[in-house]
Amino acid sequence: MAKKARVYVTLKRGVLDPQGSAVNRALHAMGYGEVSDVRLGKFIEVALDEKLPEAEARKRLEEMCRKLLANTVIEDFRIEL
Amino acid sequence: MAKKARVYVTLKRGVLDPQGSAVNRALHAMGYGEVSDVRLGKFIEVALDEKLPEAEARKRLEEMCRKLLANTVIEDFRIEL
Repeated sequence: MAKKARVYVTLKRGVLDPQGSAVNRALHAMGYGEVSDVRLGKFIEVALDEKLPEAEARKRLEEMCRKLLANTVIEDFRIEL
Repeated sequence: MAKKARVYVTLKRGVLDPQGSAVNRALHAMGYGEVSDVRLGKFIEVALDEKLPEAEARKRLEEMCRKLLANTVIEDFRIEL
């Protein structure tokens, strides 16, 4: 069995989101004028070895995020275990 | 003020996730052998007009997902309001 961690990677506040703006404009063109902003991010599900203690798992996930899953110059990440 | 909805778009169970597999292999190459599977999805934050009643907002968000935000042939979506 594995335990499942969820990682949310989002653009830092103030960083332009051209993809989000494009989706926003498309939604407006489709008649959804109530939408004022759209921000796109990544949602990553990571299955980990069940036997790994939670503190160790969290530490290793943070490393994975800093090294690969997120670009920490422009992105924030949040881990749910 | 706007209310913020969160939409999670994930691949349906059984649909191959080549990007997730690539990330999984990269994590293994970096020494994170405890990872057994990685699934990538989209995390979309949608700011909506505060005055829109919740039921109406949810209905409209579902439409937005079916029409644009998710490819319902291969993806599932979940809305948090």
